[in-house]
Amino acid sequence: MLYQDETKKAMENFPIDETVVHIELIHAIAEIKKAACIAHKKLKEIDEEKADAIIFACDEIIAGHHDKEFVTNHLQGGAGTSTNMNVNEVITSIALSHLGHPVYDHDFIHPLDDVNKSQSTNDIYPTALRIAAIRLIRSLSEECAKLQSALQRREHESYHIKKLGRTELMDAVPVTVGEEFGSYAQAIGRDRWRIYKGEERLRYINLGGTAVGTYSNAGKKYIYLVNDILRDSTGIGLAPAEYPMDLTQNNDVFVEVSGLLKSLATNLFKIANDIRFLSSGPAGGFGEITLAILQKGSSIMPGKINPVIPEMTMQVAMKVMANDYAITMAASNGNFELNSFMPLIADSLLESLKILNSTVKIFREKCIVNLSFNEEHCKKILEESTATATYLTPFLGYDKVNELVLKYNGDMKAIKKDIIDNNLMDRQKLNEILN
Amino acid sequence: MLYQDETKKAMENFPIDETVVHIELIHAIAEIKKAACIAHKKLKEIDEEKADAIIFACDEIIAGHHDKEFVTNHLQGGAGTSTNMNVNEVITSIALSHLGHPVYDHDFIHPLDDVNKSQSTNDIYPTALRIAAIRLIRSLSEECAKLQSALQRREHESYHIKKLGRTELMDAVPVTVGEEFGSYAQAIGRDRWRIYKGEERLRYINLGGTAVGTYSNAGKKYIYLVNDILRDSTGIGLAPAEYPMDLTQNNDVFVEVSGLLKSLATNLFKIANDIRFLSSGPAGGFGEITLAILQKGSSIMPGKINPVIPEMTMQVAMKVMANDYAITMAASNGNFELNSFMPLIADSLLESLKILNSTVKIFREKCIVNLSFNEEHCKKILEESTATATYLTPFLGYDKVNELVLKYNGDMKAIKKDIIDNNLMDRQKLNEILN
Amino acid sequence: MLYQDETKKAMENFPIDETVVHIELIHAIAEIKKAACIAHKKLKEIDEEKADAIIFACDEIIAGHHDKEFVTNHLQGGAGTSTNMNVNEVITSIALSHLGHPVYDHDFIHPLDDVNKSQSTNDIYPTALRIAAIRLIRSLSEECAKLQSALQRREHESYHIKKLGRTELMDAVPVTVGEEFGSYAQAIGRDRWRIYKGEERLRYINLGGTAVGTYSNAGKKYIYLVNDILRDSTGIGLAPAEYPMDLTQNNDVFVEVSGLLKSLATNLFKIANDIRFLSSGPAGGFGEITLAILQKGSSIMPGKINPVIPEMTMQVAMKVMANDYAITMAASNGNFELNSFMPLIADSLLESLKILNSTVKIFREKCIVNLSFNEEHCKKILEESTATATYLTPFLGYDKVNELVLKYNGDMKAIKKDIIDNNLMDRQKLNEILN
Amino acid sequence: MLYQDETKKAMENFPIDETVVHIELIHAIAEIKKAACIAHKKLKEIDEEKADAIIFACDEIIAGHHDKEFVTNHLQGGAGTSTNMNVNEVITSIALSHLGHPVYDHDFIHPLDDVNKSQSTNDIYPTALRIAAIRLIRSLSEECAKLQSALQRREHESYHIKKLGRTELMDAVPVTVGEEFGSYAQAIGRDRWRIYKGEERLRYINLGGTAVGTYSNAGKKYIYLVNDILRDSTGIGLAPAEYPMDLTQNNDVFVEVSGLLKSLATNLFKIANDIRFLSSGPAGGFGEITLAILQKGSSIMPGKINPVIPEMTMQVAMKVMANDYAITMAASNGNFELNSFMPLIADSLLESLKILNSTVKIFREKCIVNLSFNEEHCKKILEESTATATYLTPFLGYDKVNELVLKYNGDMKAIKKDIIDNNLMDRQKLNEILN
Repeated sequence: MLYQDETKKAMENFPIDETVVHIELIHAIAEIKKAACIAHKKLKEIDEEKADAIIFACDEIIAGHHDKEFVTNHLQGGAGTSTNMNVNEVITSIALSHLGHPVYDHDFIHPLDDVNKSQSTNDIYPTALRIAAIRLIRSLSEECAKLQSALQRREHESYHIKKLGRTELMDAVPVTVGEEFGSYAQAIGRDRWRIYKGEERLRYINLGGTAVGTYSNAGKKYIYLVNDILRDSTGIGLAPAEYPMDLTQNNDVFVEVSGLLKSLATNLFKIANDIRFLSSGPAGGFGEITLAILQKGSSIMPGKINPVIPEMTMQVAMKVMANDYAITMAASNGNFELNSFMPLIADSLLESLKILNSTVKIFREKCIVNLSFNEEHCKKILEESTATATYLTPFLGYDKVNELVLKYNGDMKAIKKDIIDNNLMDRQKLNEILN
Repeated sequence: MLYQDETKKAMENFPIDETVVHIELIHAIAEIKKAACIAHKKLKEIDEEKADAIIFACDEIIAGHHDKEFVTNHLQGGAGTSTNMNVNEVITSIALSHLGHPVYDHDFIHPLDDVNKSQSTNDIYPTALRIAAIRLIRSLSEECAKLQSALQRREHESYHIKKLGRTELMDAVPVTVGEEFGSYAQAIGRDRWRIYKGEERLRYINLGGTAVGTYSNAGKKYIYLVNDILRDSTGIGLAPAEYPMDLTQNNDVFVEVSGLLKSLATNLFKIANDIRFLSSGPAGGFGEITLAILQKGSSIMPGKINPVIPEMTMQVAMKVMANDYAITMAASNGNFELNSFMPLIADSLLESLKILNSTVKIFREKCIVNLSFNEEHCKKILEESTATATYLTPFLGYDKVNELVLKYNGDMKAIKKDIIDNNLMDRQKLNEILN
Repeated sequence: MLYQDETKKAMENFPIDETVVHIELIHAIAEIKKAACIAHKKLKEIDEEKADAIIFACDEIIAGHHDKEFVTNHLQGGAGTSTNMNVNEVITSIALSHLGHPVYDHDFIHPLDDVNKSQSTNDIYPTALRIAAIRLIRSLSEECAKLQSALQRREHESYHIKKLGRTELMDAVPVTVGEEFGSYAQAIGRDRWRIYKGEERLRYINLGGTAVGTYSNAGKKYIYLVNDILRDSTGIGLAPAEYPMDLTQNNDVFVEVSGLLKSLATNLFKIANDIRFLSSGPAGGFGEITLAILQKGSSIMPGKINPVIPEMTMQVAMKVMANDYAITMAASNGNFELNSFMPLIADSLLESLKILNSTVKIFREKCIVNLSFNEEHCKKILEESTATATYLTPFLGYDKVNELVLKYNGDMKAIKKDIIDNNLMDRQKLNEILN
Repeated sequence: MLYQDETKKAMENFPIDETVVHIELIHAIAEIKKAACIAHKKLKEIDEEKADAIIFACDEIIAGHHDKEFVTNHLQGGAGTSTNMNVNEVITSIALSHLGHPVYDHDFIHPLDDVNKSQSTNDIYPTALRIAAIRLIRSLSEECAKLQSALQRREHESYHIKKLGRTELMDAVPVTVGEEFGSYAQAIGRDRWRIYKGEERLRYINLGGTAVGTYSNAGKKYIYLVNDILRDSTGIGLAPAEYPMDLTQNNDVFVEVSGLLKSLATNLFKIANDIRFLSSGPAGGFGEITLAILQKGSSIMPGKINPVIPEMTMQVAMKVMANDYAITMAASNGNFELNSFMPLIADSLLESLKILNSTVKIFREKCIVNLSFNEEHCKKILEESTATATYLTPFLGYDKVNELVLKYNGDMKAIKKDIIDNNLMDRQKLNEILN
């Protein structure tokens, strides 16, 4: 156990459930503390031996060697202070041990005066959240690109497969399977782009602004340096906010980014739902698509294959929408110089990003690439429908075609016969139009 | 124009859009003001001539003769004060005119000292909202009862129609159309009951509590009388809250009632969605049901019949869910002795109640009662499926049946042949089980 | 590792994140499987040795000895089938090991034919969710009762402390601290009751209905017995649904219960927010209450004490509201004979119940019971305000008092002087009214 | 009455409530129909006299002369077909009347074959929604710019006013009023930009794609021309989608844009809430700001001035959030080639845009520009606080300062005395740091 007193108090104060803060946030906090320490070392504001020990401790944490030490509850009160304290204390213990000191030798290395030097939870936490989010955004954008490509490959494979188009679930006009997958690819392409652009929203940081964004207890040289060092070490184009007080209290960017994730969730829900229905059956459904067999579908009905991946995808989409609700409420309820509900924002946003990352990948690998098209069935349905009747309207007028379709109850052969028998159109032209 | 200065200020201050407060709320406020005036008259706390004129004015408003005079915006600030002022002013104008006075003769009848006597927006407004809501709840409960009955009638008509049951959209085991409509009826039956019980949540009122629930400027006799009179005049079992301060500041009952409406919305969404899919086709869908033709389905595709009533029903359900969000946020954000966001709560709750009232009726009248069952198609699908294979499991074991279903790709005839050929079961028993 | 093949497939198919299904659900599934096995044993439908081994295995799981074996993801697709398979497989392994067989000796004990006998995920899962939810509801209702009592104790302690009442955040009329805490107690009292009544909504179960609620593969005697046994073993008044098909496909009861939890969340949010503001300061806030010191408030600002428990409480409230969104969407999107999104419903509902249980307790123990009232400060503010001016209205009329308050900018002494100087009222009566 | 049969059927089928579709949508549909008619005229695909009459009719509608004729309910089923029919019929009636024909002379001008020629609801409706939304987006972006400027003017006026900063509602470190208004301005500046950029998301249109995006019954030349004409007539950089099928079925862009509006709503909620609290009092609140008197605050409490504009602003923000919920659910539930819930998307999005337009303006004009700063009170609070104690930490260490602040219960004079008495720091340096 490397955490110390304030962490223990947090555990005692917030025994809400077993869930702790996302580890990605912890790692990012450690990265920032490392950058701060390097800055202080360069400015000779900290003893070199202590600085090196702190930097060593940060590296240990960043490498994931102490993940179990970060135990503060995901819904803790205090705007994230307990999480920051937790990181400060673990760094202190590692650094002191590294130098052969007892872990409570705060006169040598102090969790606040040294490890948290020139920092406040109020600049560390939102900056760390941005770093963690940007990394997940980058990979999510890539996952969207891969899903888009996979959908496009399926589009090309199925561009020739004619099928019935449906509007309001009812038989409409002919389309191709390829066009449908192409439409899905377009939608995911937009997601890829909008999520990619989400990084820009997040790259302005209030680091150095400390408690309320007025740079209390942070020197100008430190502020300049720490931002520089962090930009280099993270490889992210982080930029100090011109007005750090704004970013300390306003969280609209997280609402905006969550809104982008919600747009992706909307598309995933719609596409997965389509695929779920298009693969329904085999006897009593649409049956135009067959999904790969991944597991037994039922504990009672043998041979049942269920659309488990589309279902999972839809559930994740709904979860992302619910998280957006939490983020919006939390961001709205900030007051004055700080938003007390940063932990809820961080927890919800990082969860959405993580489950979308995995889900977009799973949806591609276990559903899109291995589903198969039932060309014969598509053709059969199309031929049994009056999908082509619409093409007659420019020639016969809406009212006449409407009358024919209803009169013959959707029997295209009877409609054609009526048209020819009554000399509404000659057979050759009729066939041309209908093909 | 019968409204006066404070109403004009409200129009100037809140030109948000064209939508004003629900008229049901206005009528209920007038009912309360009438009761208050009768109480004061009985207690000889108001001049009889003035009282009679005020009562006359309230009656006029309750009768709906002045609906256009109530012009305060539905999203106004001020916790409903402007709406209360609007009613006070219109009553004043009508009463003064009735007595031959100029409408601004406030020395004779004053909108606050007389019409609003012993009242505050903070007790009038929540009480009026409860009255308006209870009335709509009663009719909604009745509409649910009618929908339940209609569903049960369709259940009885179709209890013999065997069809394929579907789980996770895939072919499962046999059911009947009647069982499906019976399940819908059960769900709506629960709604009927829970909405009916919603009245109990709303019948406690803070009338007489005035500004913060401490009875400021309201006499004990008045409080007793006004509650009595209002209970009689409305025909609702209203009861004075033991702790009116609680009901002046806490709005959880509206969240609870909205939650009940959301349960109904959930059922309507699910049932309408089922019907939408079951009636999809005619060639390319489930096709087990046919909906009545109500209007042209498309401006371009002649002969197209769309499930417009289920779609409308689902949209209304989603709107009710969105209103629940607004009510929850508004109710949560009350502070201290009052909730400033009563107008949003009232607007959203009354809208949900009104659109549910009409929608449950329309759904019944234009969809449930006039849809028809495609018995032949149901039978055909069922026979083409392996729905009965599950019945073999207790005899052959899950693994064997699983193997057979996958091996013969859902061809029941082939499965039966295999069973008999391999002596897994004798023909007679097999036929018994499968029927 | 006691789980077997289908569990492994689920792990491979749904690697969404590290979170698995709530253990309370797993334990309840094991309880049901135990009841089913006892029923079969009594009916001599299963070999006694096998039955005893299965019952032994269920007991082991119920006792919590194998919690790590339940590894299916909380957002899995497949309507919970993987979770059911996971439980079947672990029971099989334990039972077979117990009898000295290899864990894959399915010819001896089969996870589906034996452990899952006469069951389907579609009746087991919703029944287990109801059992888990009812247990958490019972304890939550008790926690609410304790919070209500604690609030009432604080009410009685502070009934004499006069303070300023606030409406729309502005100075209104006098109240007492006790009245405020009494109002909170009333609201939580309603929650206690509505949550207590929530059990009734959940006690109807579709156990025995199997796949779609038509009792496929479940015998009448078994159905009767298993319900009986389960009622006894759980101590919950479970009742078999008259129409199990309804409860297999409709999930409005979970929406209803979640709506009740959302009402509690609304009250917690409002009360915690009030306490947060009432304890704001010490110099620059309302300062009427002081919270106990639980932990350091800031990593940069020494001596800062923050309202961490009210903040935590508000966050949990927002999370419960977000979960309600997920439950509503999931319940609405059921189709035909089953709702595929049961896992999301279960995950969200059980999380809400669990975090509310702990939070109501923490809020009481760490905030309500140990906050202190600043009587002097309350008195000082009240005296500086014009809170009593309203009491003059019945005597001087609204317009006159309005004029005086605005003229003297809230200076009560100046107002009194004006009244006496201008003989609007005699001094004695004035003093009587204002006290 | 200029509407005809299909409109009447819609009125009969959807008597949900009194609310009809937003007139902005109707006008945009008329603009598109005008462009379509001009295109056909140029291509000589329609008789010139008829074309001119149709164009005349469209101009009449665009000019707002027939707004009362558009009567289809805002929550109608049918994906907007009834609204399109309504416009077609009114155009037909006007055009025929204009030429001296009876309004039902469909042989001369047909609402579908002529007015709706080469069109489908499925391309007209989403295109019209984009046009209407872009116009409201442009004005909303301008309103945000004006609000930003107004906030910046207040920032400059108050940059010198020192005040207490608050984190988690508790006294933190000093800030200035100007910095707070500057932070608000920054947030609204982001909104201005993100809303401005929202136009780009909406400018791709599926016009010409007709029923499902495959250009059924629309000629290539027509498609090219109609897009060109519409771009010119609207002055909006509309661009034909490369893949119109995508935009016919996917509605993620509306979710994205609604998400941007929700970000603005979040900022408005936070800023209005801050101003509401900062102006609370006068005796019992923060009292750092005084709002202008706009109307009587209470019907019972004379002289009460309430923060009605911030309250209104917060309510509108919550309504926008609720609308976002509706839009998200509706967009997610599209199926196959079309989203049936376009009417709910359109209704919610246009409402959000309209109420935000008016609210941002009202908030500026009636709250931001006319509030006043209470400099003396700000100063008094700051001096009574320990806001500057944090500045001592770099010199005395966190633990020492923590001890002092708690020991002297926030009395800065006593803290200073202790420091000097114990020679922790010399007086001069101490004074330097604290100023």
